[in-house]
Amino acid sequence: MENFVFSNETKIVFGRGTEALVGVETAAWGKKVLLHYGGGHIVRTGLKAVVEKSLQEAGVEYIELGGVQPNPRLSLVREGIDLIRKHNIEFILAVGGGSVIDSAKAMALGALYDGDVWDFYIGKAEPKKAMPVGVVLTIPAAGSEASPSSVITNEDGWLKRSVDNVILRPRFAIMNPELTFTLPPYQTACGVADMMAHIMERYFTNTREVDLTDQLCEAALRSIIKYAPRALEEPENYDVRANIMWAGTIAHNDLLGTGRVGDWASHTIEHEISGIYDLAHGAGLSIVFPAWMKYVYKHDIQRFVQFAARVWGVDPDYHNPERTVFEGIRRLEEFFKRMGLPVRLSDADIPGDRIEEMAAKCTDNGTRTVGRFVELGQEDVLNIYKLSL
Amino acid sequence: MENFVFSNETKIVFGRGTEALVGVETAAWGKKVLLHYGGGHIVRTGLKAVVEKSLQEAGVEYIELGGVQPNPRLSLVREGIDLIRKHNIEFILAVGGGSVIDSAKAMALGALYDGDVWDFYIGKAEPKKAMPVGVVLTIPAAGSEASPSSVITNEDGWLKRSVDNVILRPRFAIMNPELTFTLPPYQTACGVADMMAHIMERYFTNTREVDLTDQLCEAALRSIIKYAPRALEEPENYDVRANIMWAGTIAHNDLLGTGRVGDWASHTIEHEISGIYDLAHGAGLSIVFPAWMKYVYKHDIQRFVQFAARVWGVDPDYHNPERTVFEGIRRLEEFFKRMGLPVRLSDADIPGDRIEEMAAKCTDNGTRTVGRFVELGQEDVLNIYKLSL
Repeated sequence: MENFVFSNETKIVFGRGTEALVGVETAAWGKKVLLHYGGGHIVRTGLKAVVEKSLQEAGVEYIELGGVQPNPRLSLVREGIDLIRKHNIEFILAVGGGSVIDSAKAMALGALYDGDVWDFYIGKAEPKKAMPVGVVLTIPAAGSEASPSSVITNEDGWLKRSVDNVILRPRFAIMNPELTFTLPPYQTACGVADMMAHIMERYFTNTREVDLTDQLCEAALRSIIKYAPRALEEPENYDVRANIMWAGTIAHNDLLGTGRVGDWASHTIEHEISGIYDLAHGAGLSIVFPAWMKYVYKHDIQRFVQFAARVWGVDPDYHNPERTVFEGIRRLEEFFKRMGLPVRLSDADIPGDRIEEMAAKCTDNGTRTVGRFVELGQEDVLNIYKLSL
Repeated sequence: MENFVFSNETKIVFGRGTEALVGVETAAWGKKVLLHYGGGHIVRTGLKAVVEKSLQEAGVEYIELGGVQPNPRLSLVREGIDLIRKHNIEFILAVGGGSVIDSAKAMALGALYDGDVWDFYIGKAEPKKAMPVGVVLTIPAAGSEASPSSVITNEDGWLKRSVDNVILRPRFAIMNPELTFTLPPYQTACGVADMMAHIMERYFTNTREVDLTDQLCEAALRSIIKYAPRALEEPENYDVRANIMWAGTIAHNDLLGTGRVGDWASHTIEHEISGIYDLAHGAGLSIVFPAWMKYVYKHDIQRFVQFAARVWGVDPDYHNPERTVFEGIRRLEEFFKRMGLPVRLSDADIPGDRIEEMAAKCTDNGTRTVGRFVELGQEDVLNIYKLSL
């Protein structure tokens, strides 16, 4: 096991009706707030009205900035930073899913930085301080509500890049599973793929003797696999939604990665797809992950046997581990299909004509590798795109 | 799933050589420190010298208070509170296992309270504020390094009582598995029983549809069961010790209990044993838990079937669930025995002549019940003691 430092300060306020507590939680951090959100969904569901009433009752002033899109854009982040400075905002409240939260985190960094916020995403600057951010979560998927990550897309070149720093963990996250009852099936499915990918990125590691976190990863995956199809069948089943919502947070708050080096190639490879085609991140991951597995499994075949056996209940063929591995990957693909997700680029109507360009961008023209489990160069990434056609 | 609030601020600094970081971590919280510890073990192993050097290098002044015993005593807590006040101590550094940490937490509460610190343990006062506490952990067992709990024994009547409040979570916990290489086998085993009990107390619940935390509990238990016998065979195997040490924290930092109501009868029933006989808490738990299971399993037989199947790998006898349940309990007992732990009071040379008195104390003469999975009265507790003879 590797050395690690772990803490997770995000105060999770989980359960029915908890959105009404947002005013009190917010007031503990600031009285002038930027209320950040996406589109009309939170208006239609009445959530925005509940949040505003709660803020008002807690004596919190707020200005609004809506309009966050999936794969959140740098331009809106810059707009938010200007607003924050102009109005002396003390706290950013993100009401929405991962895109809204990631956008809020970017503003939290940029508002206290003299240069351009994009510097943090291209490694030109190191995060030192950030404004406090709070969350009312509406989509279980990205895990951004308790994670140190933010992913932003720069429209200039459609570059999708991320920054990771513990100062970006939200101060609180209000999570009411009832708010997810109205999620369309496809969005539910994309969220499930995203959280499974967060776990699998940590699971495929070269670190030896980390059975505790192996088992915890497998446990979380099995529980997601159990409940996810039920979320499509019974969208208003509170307990089903609650288990999935909490799994999404645990998948990415870093507990499952303690003491081990994760991979993260699939995320990087996927970012090129959703960066260019504006596909949902989860749908990109359901395409890339099986292809990545088929390409790298020989690096540690027993880890893939363990994945097949423990996560998917495959009865191992001890004399033919490869058969076990492929049965595990097949079940992963079948699961994604059952959830209505694409497992090939063609399933998502994405042509294969730009994969050379994508492999080049992903590896900065072959100048860097992606992934830690197996370090993949430009040619490897291209081969994975080919396996995903 | 039940509503819950969860956060865990304790900064875990985990790995080889991390004890040398104690000065820096401490200095962030205070420059006048009470260095609290047990006996000569930390002197003999050289840990005390490393800690003192690190504190000195970080410019931290400290006074010492050693002498914490297993089942830490109220009298020493009171002594510590006097010292803290006299020397204007700002921070308490606990170097040791659960007893030392629990003692430090009690002082942290008492030093900022005008009344008697015991008030908090008998429900006469509610914790409002506490001094900050830090930890260098030497025994993986109690999980106190990141938990909100403190258990203290009042020598006046040998009452063992606990307090739970999130303000008692340590600010940091330095955890180097190498420090556990020299633990005697019996102490290793007691620690294992303690952490397993922390998980099982949360596992046996009446809350329905909590498969995510069910699976996480089962995962942690399986990993402990896998590594614990190896810790006896290979006491200096770093990875084995590391998995167990981290499991001990996860077992009791409350993540595994999120959204579910735990039981805790076995802990309460055990406290009467170790309170009177000064048996190690873990050894008391390895006696009480199987007896408790045999007494209550009919309340939810399928939960005990799940426990047997998923944790112990029992192939369920679908036509005879009781047989499955008892095979699970048998394997738990066999495991404890393999670890060198008692599973009956007689194994620990404890006579049965005071069990009536213990059942009375445990339930305040029948005026309160213990346990949430099944609410047990005085007669029930007595029956469980009888099953443990």
